Amino acid sequence: MQDLLNDLAEAAAGDPDKGEVASYIPELAGINPEQFGIAIALADGQVFTAGDAEVPFSIQSVSKVFALALALGRVGDQLWYRVGREPSGLSFDSILLLEREDGIPRNPFINAGALVTTDTYLAGSSPKEALGELLRFVRAAADDDSIHINEKVAHSEIATGHRNFSLAHYLASHGNLRSTVGKVLGTYCHQCGVEMTCRQLAMAGRFLVDAQEMPQLVSVERRRRINALMMTCGHYDGSGDFAFRVGLPGKSGVGGGILVISPGRASIAVWSPGLNRYGNSKLGTEAMETFARRTGWSVFG
Amino acid sequence: MQDLLNDLAEAAAGDPDKGEVASYIPELAGINPEQFGIAIALADGQVFTAGDAEVPFSIQSVSKVFALALALGRVGDQLWYRVGREPSGLSFDSILLLEREDGIPRNPFINAGALVTTDTYLAGSSPKEALGELLRFVRAAADDDSIHINEKVAHSEIATGHRNFSLAHYLASHGNLRSTVGKVLGTYCHQCGVEMTCRQLAMAGRFLVDAQEMPQLVSVERRRRINALMMTCGHYDGSGDFAFRVGLPGKSGVGGGILVISPGRASIAVWSPGLNRYGNSKLGTEAMETFARRTGWSVFG
Amino acid sequence: MQDLLNDLAEAAAGDPDKGEVASYIPELAGINPEQFGIAIALADGQVFTAGDAEVPFSIQSVSKVFALALALGRVGDQLWYRVGREPSGLSFDSILLLEREDGIPRNPFINAGALVTTDTYLAGSSPKEALGELLRFVRAAADDDSIHINEKVAHSEIATGHRNFSLAHYLASHGNLRSTVGKVLGTYCHQCGVEMTCRQLAMAGRFLVDAQEMPQLVSVERRRRINALMMTCGHYDGSGDFAFRVGLPGKSGVGGGILVISPGRASIAVWSPGLNRYGNSKLGTEAMETFARRTGWSVFG
Amino acid sequence: MQDLLNDLAEAAAGDPDKGEVASYIPELAGINPEQFGIAIALADGQVFTAGDAEVPFSIQSVSKVFALALALGRVGDQLWYRVGREPSGLSFDSILLLEREDGIPRNPFINAGALVTTDTYLAGSSPKEALGELLRFVRAAADDDSIHINEKVAHSEIATGHRNFSLAHYLASHGNLRSTVGKVLGTYCHQCGVEMTCRQLAMAGRFLVDAQEMPQLVSVERRRRINALMMTCGHYDGSGDFAFRVGLPGKSGVGGGILVISPGRASIAVWSPGLNRYGNSKLGTEAMETFARRTGWSVFG
Repeated sequence: MQDLLNDLAEAAAGDPDKGEVASYIPELAGINPEQFGIAIALADGQVFTAGDAEVPFSIQSVSKVFALALALGRVGDQLWYRVGREPSGLSFDSILLLEREDGIPRNPFINAGALVTTDTYLAGSSPKEALGELLRFVRAAADDDSIHINEKVAHSEIATGHRNFSLAHYLASHGNLRSTVGKVLGTYCHQCGVEMTCRQLAMAGRFLVDAQEMPQLVSVERRRRINALMMTCGHYDGSGDFAFRVGLPGKSGVGGGILVISPGRASIAVWSPGLNRYGNSKLGTEAMETFARRTGWSVFG
Repeated sequence: MQDLLNDLAEAAAGDPDKGEVASYIPELAGINPEQFGIAIALADGQVFTAGDAEVPFSIQSVSKVFALALALGRVGDQLWYRVGREPSGLSFDSILLLEREDGIPRNPFINAGALVTTDTYLAGSSPKEALGELLRFVRAAADDDSIHINEKVAHSEIATGHRNFSLAHYLASHGNLRSTVGKVLGTYCHQCGVEMTCRQLAMAGRFLVDAQEMPQLVSVERRRRINALMMTCGHYDGSGDFAFRVGLPGKSGVGGGILVISPGRASIAVWSPGLNRYGNSKLGTEAMETFARRTGWSVFG
Repeated sequence: MQDLLNDLAEAAAGDPDKGEVASYIPELAGINPEQFGIAIALADGQVFTAGDAEVPFSIQSVSKVFALALALGRVGDQLWYRVGREPSGLSFDSILLLEREDGIPRNPFINAGALVTTDTYLAGSSPKEALGELLRFVRAAADDDSIHINEKVAHSEIATGHRNFSLAHYLASHGNLRSTVGKVLGTYCHQCGVEMTCRQLAMAGRFLVDAQEMPQLVSVERRRRINALMMTCGHYDGSGDFAFRVGLPGKSGVGGGILVISPGRASIAVWSPGLNRYGNSKLGTEAMETFARRTGWSVFG
Repeated sequence: MQDLLNDLAEAAAGDPDKGEVASYIPELAGINPEQFGIAIALADGQVFTAGDAEVPFSIQSVSKVFALALALGRVGDQLWYRVGREPSGLSFDSILLLEREDGIPRNPFINAGALVTTDTYLAGSSPKEALGELLRFVRAAADDDSIHINEKVAHSEIATGHRNFSLAHYLASHGNLRSTVGKVLGTYCHQCGVEMTCRQLAMAGRFLVDAQEMPQLVSVERRRRINALMMTCGHYDGSGDFAFRVGLPGKSGVGGGILVISPGRASIAVWSPGLNRYGNSKLGTEAMETFARRTGWSVFG
């Protein structure tokens, strides 16, 4: 396994095309695209890493996985009255289907849907309390109390996040937010600003791996369902391609991180800031494709 | 296993809501919605059945799986220049995205995409030869030379298939058909008219199960990729829901059949003619949900 | 003329179907739908009225005509880099085309486009100064210094206008706003809250009538162009129908008012709060259809 | 008037950018884009021409005006159950809205809508009889029995018109065609292949001019309504722009012809084969803009 991870890090370092760093979030725009890290937490408790696996990065939309777990913990299947579970076939920040579908986002992993899950776990609490609960969940999952939120990134996103404000107001116009737009956006942007290293993120993903040693934070059925949503919707309009090439459920973030689950076997985190045209880490996706081919760990047999 | 299948057949028989039989294909409209069959071909070679598992039905869009395997066998990854591999988020016969995306269908399991795969395996042959090849593939997969095409169904679909003609002409207007519209439609409608029982279909799906005893008709990588496409795109705009509820790759047909693969374990065929609002078998989907819960065979751990 | 207007008021009073009063703006929701007023300011200076022609109402989107004139006065044809001049084929508050067309609204008479014209005449001023300029324009046009803004309506719209906030943030995300979202929305909602009677509105529309006695506030070419936009875009996705049935350029507002221009002849204002399914005054539209048939004043010969 | 037309022809000859000749209809692709003709038939009976006003060209979609008049003559307002009267905001051959709007085309001047009007006047006749009736109408309007159909163009369009076949089958799938797809397309393509010179087309348009001397082929109300539709929908997704720049109702064809009506004054035909990005004659549109500015004949005052 260590050899494999080293090979992946080496291949990434040698690839001249690093993708494009997201430019629309000022705090992310300046990040060095040369970085690449990978970590794997195996079912037996072993952890392997390679490359920049100890460099903290902004997990961004990978946080939607934890937010979904939290929201389901709060309201269970009630959540599905307010958000769907189908791939949207459109980009992460699309507002188009909201108009066609009366303010019900297609799934919890596009921005509009994630705003609804944030609103769901926020309900009745202050943003500070809600974010506290989110951090507790993530820290418990990763078994690491040092995980925190990068306030500078969060505030950078609040200040420049017109598209997310637009989505939130649209949801509000359909009565699909319980808290105010300001509170939801504030909480959402802080959630996106959670910072982790690859090692931490791989550890945090273990609750989605079906194995005895792993933290049991959600029921079996819920774990399966979250993995299913990661498979069909985890990479926006590149979800089909990720399933085709990698064959494992995963969730990407615009910060360049991807959390990938191999059910029964491992939780894997890969990170490289340059993105492909779907907004998913270019080198990260390629590394996972090679990983899946070399391990044969596809869920598809 | 036999007990489980019996339970499923009994539950189906007792469900007052059978869904709606597809009315737009005259030959299908008259079918008795009370029927329900299920068959499972295990990796160890055993086969179990329950209900109307020996009643032949029109596999319709389940044939797109075999057509895809055939087309990939012909042209390999060249196919992906002419058809995508992303869920469309729209209904099976939608033409909307073709306009947005310059005549490249989103995936090979919606009608537009399946017309391209038919055109691909048809290339250079007569429809008769191409259909002969398709039948040979299906018969080899099922190890059953009695599988045939229902000509009446095929002709009924040609005579009333304005929507498919519309899609085919649209593809042709973008240069994305090699044969004439008439030939492609004729072949496509015959392909949809392949008739099988649940037992035969379960047998025919074994090439997608990762197991020693199973027919090796495609490479490991191709098998995984076809399963991945079935997971993300196999149930049209109900694909996310099927993945969420069942957690296994599957492909449905408007005739009420669903082929479901449990990698490494089994090929399963379920059939009941009444459909849900996505055009997938209502009782069939529900039976598979119970099946997955009771066996724990989700690919998601 | 007086007889004709009396007939129209009588027909309106006798129509049992008054349409539906807009419910999404709280201050408008309580208005009595039984009201109907009409006023006509002829090219020769005569004014006729009937019904509730002296009752003040919120002109809402009719204000987009004055805002457009003001914005064109500020920046001339530069405006057309930021907003189109084509009918959108969609509802007044649609956000869908903004996504398809990179934040350039289709025309200045849908909400998204009107936010751009407001932003244009607001540029460099405070909202208070900009609204002062708007009022000066409207008062000069109507020759009536008593015209004012209903603050309660304006604040009601700011407090509940999530859809407009969504549109404004979307424009901002594409760099198509110069002032802040808050300033633009504040100004826009006050502009919508301008209150007039039918008599005042008919007077205010005279600058769009081609006649010697009329106020010359815009050039001949600009007057024609504003009328052209009213014809093709003045009634949202009911514009084609209004042109077909009435044959005169007009602009409707969700408050139930419609300003209609008969070039060379007259400016006409009609008001009734109940709306048809496009969000245009039901009785007002019907009255204008009868008016056009009886006078033969169609621009179409 | 003669001087004005000469100026327009001269300006067109001197313009280095002639637009792009439509390439998708083989018979049109070879036409010399240097040609430009204009003709005007005044209300008093005088006719003026300039440039290539005696060169016959394929009127293509201008024929939709005559087809609409014919269909309305057949079924009157019944037509509006099968086709709308709103601008579509999309290109001439778009199929997208048909899916959104259940097979009811937005208006009779986009291809889908024109197929419905063709189907309407075809009803119960053979294509040959129907085309005979169309020619009789056009010849009566133009007072010229030499007008005919170019069979080569018609057959070229049938052979290559996949997009129109796609639209027709889509309409048929919604039950919005009475005759077979083959008959409707055959009739439609022949209708598009009507050939006229500018002089003939200007003459043929006189029935839409409100003047004593003009042929009275339709009622006053119908004339107004056809003109209204030409204003809001006559140039596809360039209709708003034509209304804005020219201010007269007009209908363009992909052959480069435009028929323009100045109510009460004149019928004007302009032709130049090179198209702008909306599929309307580039030089023709520009000539009409100059014409409108110099004559002041806008319907907008």
